[in-house]
Amino acid sequence: MRGAVLHGPGDVRVEEREDPRIEAPTDAIIRLSATCICGSDLWPYRGEAGDEPAPMGHEYCGIVEEVGPEVRTVRPGQFVVGSFFASDGTCELCRAGYHSACVHKVPMGGIGTQAEYARVPLADGTLVATPEVPDPDLVPSFLAASDVLGTGWFAAVAAQAGPGRSVVVVGDGAVGLHGVLAARHLGAERIIVMSRNPARQALARTYGATDVVEERGKEGAAHVRDLTDGLGAHCSIEAVGTREAMLQAIGATRPGGHVGFVGVTHGDLPGGFLFRSHVHLHGGPAPVRRFLPELMQLIWDRAIDPGLVFDLTLPLEEAAEGYRAMDERRAIKALLTV
Amino acid sequence: MRGAVLHGPGDVRVEEREDPRIEAPTDAIIRLSATCICGSDLWPYRGEAGDEPAPMGHEYCGIVEEVGPEVRTVRPGQFVVGSFFASDGTCELCRAGYHSACVHKVPMGGIGTQAEYARVPLADGTLVATPEVPDPDLVPSFLAASDVLGTGWFAAVAAQAGPGRSVVVVGDGAVGLHGVLAARHLGAERIIVMSRNPARQALARTYGATDVVEERGKEGAAHVRDLTDGLGAHCSIEAVGTREAMLQAIGATRPGGHVGFVGVTHGDLPGGFLFRSHVHLHGGPAPVRRFLPELMQLIWDRAIDPGLVFDLTLPLEEAAEGYRAMDERRAIKALLTV
Repeated sequence: MRGAVLHGPGDVRVEEREDPRIEAPTDAIIRLSATCICGSDLWPYRGEAGDEPAPMGHEYCGIVEEVGPEVRTVRPGQFVVGSFFASDGTCELCRAGYHSACVHKVPMGGIGTQAEYARVPLADGTLVATPEVPDPDLVPSFLAASDVLGTGWFAAVAAQAGPGRSVVVVGDGAVGLHGVLAARHLGAERIIVMSRNPARQALARTYGATDVVEERGKEGAAHVRDLTDGLGAHCSIEAVGTREAMLQAIGATRPGGHVGFVGVTHGDLPGGFLFRSHVHLHGGPAPVRRFLPELMQLIWDRAIDPGLVFDLTLPLEEAAEGYRAMDERRAIKALLTV
Repeated sequence: MRGAVLHGPGDVRVEEREDPRIEAPTDAIIRLSATCICGSDLWPYRGEAGDEPAPMGHEYCGIVEEVGPEVRTVRPGQFVVGSFFASDGTCELCRAGYHSACVHKVPMGGIGTQAEYARVPLADGTLVATPEVPDPDLVPSFLAASDVLGTGWFAAVAAQAGPGRSVVVVGDGAVGLHGVLAARHLGAERIIVMSRNPARQALARTYGATDVVEERGKEGAAHVRDLTDGLGAHCSIEAVGTREAMLQAIGATRPGGHVGFVGVTHGDLPGGFLFRSHVHLHGGPAPVRRFLPELMQLIWDRAIDPGLVFDLTLPLEEAAEGYRAMDERRAIKALLTV
């Protein structure tokens, strides 16, 4: 099959990869309906240490081709979505809602879903099927559910976005934009997106943002406080992963408020600043699987349209251009047709 | 009046200080029934930068001597306890339970309560009176409520200690020991204290600890996981303030668990470690005032005995020896009689 492989910084190639096969009786093989490039794929693309060549991609939706003999809940022909961590769904951590910390978790990034086919371990725990094969125009939204929508949703839940609350969103990438969407759906009253990009500001407003703050750092935090009774937002979503973004998110939140952080975190956090901030901090790799049934139903019902974040569509063969466009911030998120 | 003053690292002197007087119509003056030395007083005592000479102490209970003309809720002759931050009790942050972030907060450490008398700003918001002047044997427990008990309690609440939960406590000082007491009162099932000190281990068991772990760092976290189904504790209380203690607390907590941190935080936290840990983190200067009515009732009813943490009692004049004893870990906590 064809698949994207990273050979070194900035060097993504679509080449022949071995066809996946059932390795464990709990595996499924899916034929990708579409795949995409994640903001977190840019970390290795930009040269963060890793073993190369490395198959790329961890977001996926598609049609089940084959299942192992122990798989019970999905069958060939169904359209399914899973998260970027395969999870058993039965361990104590999964039952507590932390599927991305499952004691048997398998990172799908190691399998590489920017490809024609993918093996999905722990299929019963990992995959959620739609009632029927969806209309093609819904595929981008289901694909978004696999990571960026679920991640933005987790961030909004971790930030305790809800009725009467003000929410500030640091990061105007796909995850941040879906954080806006989630905060709106959860009933937040005021949603402030920090962005300097007109196209992203516009999509944020489509998703429910009420205010845009263009300043960054301390000036940005001060502007947010001006919009929130001088106290800072009740809730804050951090969807970048840099130290600066974390400090901005914490600094824009009132004492006792909640910060949901889902950017893959780089850099140290100053402990004294965190101590004095009095915020609640929760985040990490999002347990997307927790939210999939609800999010997939909302997409099936056309109640939300997360697929709007894909502003570039390319064939899988042109994955390298998708990486370049995202790296240069010419695209929010690139969908790869398979 | 007499009061303790820090003149430089390791140099605490009890000397004449100006008698406090009503400065604002919302002030009260109290005559201290007892005062004490806090673990956090050891940071400046050990040479952390500060302006010196500095009056010392922020824990207090005593008899109201005089009140300003706008004070309504306490009157001369009452026995009162307050927190280490004076707070108005009416701003949005106080009403949200974050009195230690009150928009009008006044740090009592700047006033210095290791003295015969103290001015308490915002007396209506800050002070809580007992029904009558308590028996003298209860004074140490009421004094503990002023900071270390309320701080340990906040840590246990921030860690979401409760029925069916396992709780690990990092730090066997007065705050950590009160974290144990609070976790037991809140219904935690298993309470693991990390301590190498036999006397402190014994008091922890008196307060409800079920297990003691003597190892530190990664070995300590591994031992805690052994005691908690291999997953780590549901809840963790950090009551030291060093980077090592924070890493130990986070490392001993299961994904999705809660860490309450109340040690005055020093050092940076590695962001990637925090991200992957999947814990909830909440802490900061404890909003002790939130808990005072409940804690003071429990003490009045003799349902809890937080005063046991005072294992050294000295007259105020010998404050310097109290600092030395705590600095050298010869005492858990020194009470100063006035």
